[in-house]
Amino acid sequence: MIDFRSDTVTQPTEAMLQAMLSAKVGDDVFGEDPTINQLEQMTAEMFGLEAGLFCPSGTMTNQIAIKAHTQPGDEVICDELSHIYQYEGGGVAVNSACSVRLLHGNNGRLTADMVKNAINNPEDVHKPISRLVSLENTVNKGGGCCYELADIEDIKTVCLSYNLGLHLDGARLFNALVYKQQKASDYGQLFDSISICLSKGLGTPVGSVLLGNKAFIKKSRRIRKVMGGGMRQAGILAAAGIYALENNINRLAEDHLHATQIAAALAETDYVGDILPVETNIVIATIKGRFTPTTFIEAMAKHNIKLFSVSSTQIRLVLHLNITKEMVETTIDTIKKL
Amino acid sequence: MIDFRSDTVTQPTEAMLQAMLSAKVGDDVFGEDPTINQLEQMTAEMFGLEAGLFCPSGTMTNQIAIKAHTQPGDEVICDELSHIYQYEGGGVAVNSACSVRLLHGNNGRLTADMVKNAINNPEDVHKPISRLVSLENTVNKGGGCCYELADIEDIKTVCLSYNLGLHLDGARLFNALVYKQQKASDYGQLFDSISICLSKGLGTPVGSVLLGNKAFIKKSRRIRKVMGGGMRQAGILAAAGIYALENNINRLAEDHLHATQIAAALAETDYVGDILPVETNIVIATIKGRFTPTTFIEAMAKHNIKLFSVSSTQIRLVLHLNITKEMVETTIDTIKKL
Amino acid sequence: MIDFRSDTVTQPTEAMLQAMLSAKVGDDVFGEDPTINQLEQMTAEMFGLEAGLFCPSGTMTNQIAIKAHTQPGDEVICDELSHIYQYEGGGVAVNSACSVRLLHGNNGRLTADMVKNAINNPEDVHKPISRLVSLENTVNKGGGCCYELADIEDIKTVCLSYNLGLHLDGARLFNALVYKQQKASDYGQLFDSISICLSKGLGTPVGSVLLGNKAFIKKSRRIRKVMGGGMRQAGILAAAGIYALENNINRLAEDHLHATQIAAALAETDYVGDILPVETNIVIATIKGRFTPTTFIEAMAKHNIKLFSVSSTQIRLVLHLNITKEMVETTIDTIKKL
Amino acid sequence: MIDFRSDTVTQPTEAMLQAMLSAKVGDDVFGEDPTINQLEQMTAEMFGLEAGLFCPSGTMTNQIAIKAHTQPGDEVICDELSHIYQYEGGGVAVNSACSVRLLHGNNGRLTADMVKNAINNPEDVHKPISRLVSLENTVNKGGGCCYELADIEDIKTVCLSYNLGLHLDGARLFNALVYKQQKASDYGQLFDSISICLSKGLGTPVGSVLLGNKAFIKKSRRIRKVMGGGMRQAGILAAAGIYALENNINRLAEDHLHATQIAAALAETDYVGDILPVETNIVIATIKGRFTPTTFIEAMAKHNIKLFSVSSTQIRLVLHLNITKEMVETTIDTIKKL
Repeated sequence: MIDFRSDTVTQPTEAMLQAMLSAKVGDDVFGEDPTINQLEQMTAEMFGLEAGLFCPSGTMTNQIAIKAHTQPGDEVICDELSHIYQYEGGGVAVNSACSVRLLHGNNGRLTADMVKNAINNPEDVHKPISRLVSLENTVNKGGGCCYELADIEDIKTVCLSYNLGLHLDGARLFNALVYKQQKASDYGQLFDSISICLSKGLGTPVGSVLLGNKAFIKKSRRIRKVMGGGMRQAGILAAAGIYALENNINRLAEDHLHATQIAAALAETDYVGDILPVETNIVIATIKGRFTPTTFIEAMAKHNIKLFSVSSTQIRLVLHLNITKEMVETTIDTIKKL
Repeated sequence: MIDFRSDTVTQPTEAMLQAMLSAKVGDDVFGEDPTINQLEQMTAEMFGLEAGLFCPSGTMTNQIAIKAHTQPGDEVICDELSHIYQYEGGGVAVNSACSVRLLHGNNGRLTADMVKNAINNPEDVHKPISRLVSLENTVNKGGGCCYELADIEDIKTVCLSYNLGLHLDGARLFNALVYKQQKASDYGQLFDSISICLSKGLGTPVGSVLLGNKAFIKKSRRIRKVMGGGMRQAGILAAAGIYALENNINRLAEDHLHATQIAAALAETDYVGDILPVETNIVIATIKGRFTPTTFIEAMAKHNIKLFSVSSTQIRLVLHLNITKEMVETTIDTIKKL
Repeated sequence: MIDFRSDTVTQPTEAMLQAMLSAKVGDDVFGEDPTINQLEQMTAEMFGLEAGLFCPSGTMTNQIAIKAHTQPGDEVICDELSHIYQYEGGGVAVNSACSVRLLHGNNGRLTADMVKNAINNPEDVHKPISRLVSLENTVNKGGGCCYELADIEDIKTVCLSYNLGLHLDGARLFNALVYKQQKASDYGQLFDSISICLSKGLGTPVGSVLLGNKAFIKKSRRIRKVMGGGMRQAGILAAAGIYALENNINRLAEDHLHATQIAAALAETDYVGDILPVETNIVIATIKGRFTPTTFIEAMAKHNIKLFSVSSTQIRLVLHLNITKEMVETTIDTIKKL
Repeated sequence: MIDFRSDTVTQPTEAMLQAMLSAKVGDDVFGEDPTINQLEQMTAEMFGLEAGLFCPSGTMTNQIAIKAHTQPGDEVICDELSHIYQYEGGGVAVNSACSVRLLHGNNGRLTADMVKNAINNPEDVHKPISRLVSLENTVNKGGGCCYELADIEDIKTVCLSYNLGLHLDGARLFNALVYKQQKASDYGQLFDSISICLSKGLGTPVGSVLLGNKAFIKKSRRIRKVMGGGMRQAGILAAAGIYALENNINRLAEDHLHATQIAAALAETDYVGDILPVETNIVIATIKGRFTPTTFIEAMAKHNIKLFSVSSTQIRLVLHLNITKEMVETTIDTIKKL
C-alpha cells in the first residue's frame, strides 16, 4: 500500500522507537519529565523563543495559541484556506468564542495590505475587536506553498502598528525551511507564537510544540490543562520528537523532489488540469475529462495507491517519510497507465 | 437636521406615545404583562407561527434564535454581508460558540445551490456540523434588496433534506412585504424562526419579536433570561409595537418612493458611480471623482444632512418615518448643488 | 390583589408615566439619547464613579460586569445564596465561562477571612484563577439583610492584596442605604463595579444601571451590544429611572416598616418558625405545623394575597411601592385569622 | 526517593515498554490504529458498553463526557470534593458553559436523596436545567473511599425518573473494583458514560478511555477533535494500557495493604488527628500539634519521602506501582521517628 493521504500516517522507524524506549520520563503535569523539558527547551532555542509546550496534537497547539492571544468577542484574521478554520472542528468559536475574518490570499498566503484592510475600527461596538493574525506556512490547502520572509516581515509591521498578535501554524514549517533555505530563528523573531508539528514531515507518532515567550507559555500551560492536554510520562513521545529534529529535517528535500516528479507525471496526462505550483511535499491537482476525483481515487486504489480529494474537483497527494523512491516510481507508472 | 444614518433613529409620534402611556402592564418575567402577551400573540398569528417572544433588540432576537437552533461546534450558513456576521459583535461565536460558513450571494441573497454546496459532511470530525441557514430580508448591506419567495422555497427544500434549521433576520421584513406584496404568513410557513424588528421602519422606540413554534419559544425564553433580556413592565414598549403594526406598515411605501427619488438624483451627478438596485428604503451608492465617501458625508453635513459610509467607497442613505417629502426634496436639491 | 411575590411587580405611577411621556430621546446605540445619558451621568455622580451604562435588566448588568472583569477559566467568589448564582440562569458559566467558588456566609454576607481563604493558588493549573468577588446588598435570599461598611472595607483590602475585582449586585442597594443611613458615594469608593436596579424598590417598569470607571464601562458597552442589550430610544425608560431616583428613595422606609409589622404578626402565629432578621423590605419565614409553604400560600391566595416560597420550608414576602398601609393591615388580619 | 504525591508519577516497567515498542500502529484520526482500536473494544467489552475512546488524559475524558451530555446553561450535580470541580481548571464552565450544583456527601459520596433534592424545576427560567449527575469512585479527596453498588443503583433510579445523565469519573475505579470485589460490567449497566484512567493505579505513562454507547462515543470523538485530543500513532500508548489491564489490576490490593499499614503508623503518632477511613490506595490525615502539613512535608522530604497537602490541615499519601514493600517499611520507620 502506498499511502499519499497525509504525512500524518507515518510509522515510527526502529531507530526512533529505540530512542523512545530509552527516554527518561517523569510526570509532566508536575513539570518533571526530563525528555519533555529537553524537547521544549531545544525547540525554543532553535527558534530563538523563550519557552515551549509539548501537546498531543497540532490542533491543540493552534487552539491553545488562539485562546491565549484572545478574549471572547475578538476576531482572528486568517486566510479562508487556513487549517485553523477548515479542519479544527470550528475550534476558533468553540474554544475561544472568537470570530474569523476570512481573507482570500494567494493560495492561502496573505499580504500586509490584505491584513491592514481587514482590521476593524476598535471604537465600533458592532464589530469584533481585531486581535490576532494567524498565518500557515506551508499552506496545506494552498498546495504546500511557502511564504517569503519579506512578506511576513511586512505583515509583522502591520501587526505591530495595530497591536495584533501574530501566530504561525507551522504544521509543515520544516518543509518551508528546507525549501526556502530559511532559519528557524528568522521565524522566532517575527511571530508571537509558533506551533510546530512533529508528526507530519518529521515522522513521529504523536506531538506538537507551541513556542512563545515565558508569560505566553505559562498561560498556555494552564489552557492545556483545562483542555485535557496535560499528559504524564509523555517523554516517551517527546523522545521521538528529539530524534526527529536531529535526524529527519534534511530528508524532507527528498519528499519535495518526489512531489515534483509526481506533479510532472500528472501534468503529462489528459485527465489532469491545473496543478498548484509544487514547492514542498504536497501535490494538489484538478481532475478533468475521463476522471472525476472520486473515480480517479478509485482507480488508484486498485493499484494500492491511496489519496484524498480536497474539493469537488481536486485531488491531493502528500509525500512523507514512508514513501520511498520505488513507491514514487510505481505511482508515476500508474499515473501514466490509467 | 435630516438624518439618513439609519431607520433606527426615529422618534415616537404623539399618537404612539399615547398608546404607550395607556398600556396595561405587568411583570413579563412572570408572563403577566398583558400588552406584551398581546403583541406576542398578534405577531405569531400574523405570521402563522405558534408563539412569540418580545426582546429589547433585533440583535437579541437573532442571537437567541441562533443559540436555540444550535449547539457549540455547529456551523451557521449565511451570506458574508449578513447582519448577524457583520454587525452583532461576533455574537455567533460569543453567544453560541458556532462557526460561520460565509457565502457570496447576489447582494446578500443566497440560492439553494449555494446552500447545498456549503453543507459539511457530517461524518468528518474536522468540520463543524452544518446546522442552521440564516437569511436576511431585506438585505441591509445589499441595498435593501428582497428575496423572491420561490428562491426561499428552494432553500427550504434543501434545509429539509439536510435537516438544517432556517432562520430569518427580518429586521426590515415589512419593507419586503410591502415592496413584493407578500404576506407575512408566507414567511411563517417557510422559516423555523423569524426575527422582526419594531424599531426600524415601524418606528417604535425599542423592541423586536422572535417567532417560532412553542417549544422553540420556550427554549428562547430561557436564553433571553440568561442573556439579561427579561424585562418587567415592558408592555409600555410593546404597546408602541402594537400601534406600529396597526398603523405604520403601509406607509413604508413612501420611504421606498423617497429612496428611488434620491437614487435618481444621485445617478445624475458626476460624483456617483454604481448604485445598488433600489427596492425598498435603502440607497447604497459608490462615490467617485470629486468626492470620497468621507468628503461627501462632510459636504452633506454642512447642509444638515447626516448619512453613513458602509465601505471605503460606498455611502448609504436610509429612509424612514421621520423623513418627510420636504426633507427628501431638500436632500435632492443639495445632491444636485454639491 | 395584594402582591408580595416580588418588588418587581410594581406598576408605574401616573407621575412617572408623565415623566416618561415627556422624555427627550435619541438612538442610544449611537450614544444620542439625552435622557439615558442624563441617567448614566446622574447615577455615576451619585456613586462617585466615572460612568454608567443603562441596561434592560439587573441580570444583564450583573452578567456584563462579571464578563468585563473576567476571562474564561477564572473563578468568581460569592455566597451560595447570591442572585448571580441562584437566579441568573447559570449565566456565570454561560456568558463568562467562569467557575464559582460558593461560600457560606451569614445570611449571604461574606467576611474578609472567608474571601481570603477561598483564593486559589495562582500557580496551580488545576485550579481556576480567582479573579472577582461579588457581593449582594441587601441579600435577597438572606431576608434583605445588609452589610456593615466596615465589613466591605475589610473585603476590599483583601481584594486589593490579591488583585481581585470587587463587584456589587445592588439590586436592592437603595434599601440598604436607607436602612443603614449610608451614602451612595461610600459604595463607589469600595467597588470596582456596581449594578443598581430601578425596577425593584424604586418602582420603574424597566431598567438597571451598571457603574464603574470609564474603561470598564467602555468594555461593558461592547458586551451589552453582543448580548443584545443595545436599545434605541430607551430614554423613555430612563426617564422613569430619573423620576424614581428623585422621588422614590426615601419612601423605602415605609416598606421596611411594613415588613417589620408583617414579621411581627407572623411571629405570633403557631405555624411560623424562624424568621430571618428583618432589616429592609423582605420577610423570609419558616412555615411549620398546620401549614407547609404550599398550603400557606394557597390559604393566603384565597384572601387575594400572593407570595412565593423560597425553599421547601420557607415563604417570602416582599414589600414595595404598590403595597399600601391598608394592604399591610389586611394582610396582618389574614395572617392572624388563618 | 519515595514518591507518595500521586499515583500519576509511576514509571513504565520494562515489560510495559516492550509491549509499547512492539505495538502495531496507524493514524487514529482516521480510525486506523489497530492497538487503539483493540484497547477501545477491550475496555468497552469489559464494562459491557458499546464503544470506547482513547484520550491523552482523564481530565479530557471527563470534560468530553460533560460536554457530550450537556448544552450550555445546563447544570451538573456533583459533590463539592469531586475532581471535575476541584482539579480540572474550571473546565465544566470553560468547556461546557455549565453550572455546578455542589453537594456535600459522605466524604464525596452522594445519595439518591441528595441528588433528588438538588434537581431544579425545569419550568423556572431563573435556574439552569439539571442535566447530569457525575460521581467519582473512588473519591480522591474523600480518601479513596468507595461507593456501594446499591447506592449507585438508587441514584440511577433518580436519574432515570428525572431524565438526567449519569457519568462516572473512574480515575481510580479499578481500586474500587478490587477493594469491593465488584465487576466492571456492574458499572456499565448503571452509567451512561465512564471515564477510566490507565495512568494512575494501572501504571501506564499516558492515557484514559471514555466509554459509552455508540452515539455518545461518536459525539465524543468529534469533541475530542476540537479539543485537540486527536492523536496519530498513539497505539504505542494504548499498548501500555492493554498490558496494564492484563497485568496490573490485581496488584492494586498491595497498594491498599500498604495504605492501611501507613495509616496505622500515622494513627499511633501524637501529631496526627483524624485519618479518613482507608479503603484503597489513599491516606488523608489531619496533622496537628508539633507539625503543620507544611512542616511535616518538609520533615519527610529530609528523609527523601515526598507527599502533598490537600488542605490547610491535611496531608495525603498515595500508594502505587512504584512503591515497594521496602519503601513502605522505610516510610513507617520515618513516621515513627519524626
